Amino acid sequence: MPAKDEGNTLKRFGVNVRARRAAMELSQEGLAEKADLDRTYIGGIERGERNLTLISARRVAKALKTTVSELCEGIDR
Amino acid sequence: MPAKDEGNTLKRFGVNVRARRAAMELSQEGLAEKADLDRTYIGGIERGERNLTLISARRVAKALKTTVSELCEGIDR
Repeated sequence: MPAKDEGNTLKRFGVNVRARRAAMELSQEGLAEKADLDRTYIGGIERGERNLTLISARRVAKALKTTVSELCEGIDR
Repeated sequence: MPAKDEGNTLKRFGVNVRARRAAMELSQEGLAEKADLDRTYIGGIERGERNLTLISARRVAKALKTTVSELCEGIDR
């Protein structure tokens, strides 16, 4: 169980992923396929339930044609 | 064993951490203490041997008075 502010970190990351995916008009299924990850895992990321590693974050960023740095904007608060 | 480009991701993250730590004139020991992590773990991060989670990256960023986003600059290449 992460501390509250750490939970916010993952939630904000998830919000960023969802926003970027929506901007690309991609479904969770579509993103899952591009990132070679399970759709339920994508859902978990977007709900802030997944504490991704840098390598997994990079895979998601690549599938969303963006960078880990962009997806991490605001996650420190 | 990560793919070559994924190894570069971790190496670049480590380079960013080391640069930031040096700019703060902090030793690995000092950073380890601030981040509540082991010194050998900090050494591993800086050598690109650690695939940190977002929560661990946030802890390191906080100890370095910066953001995960900043520490992730350039890691996608």
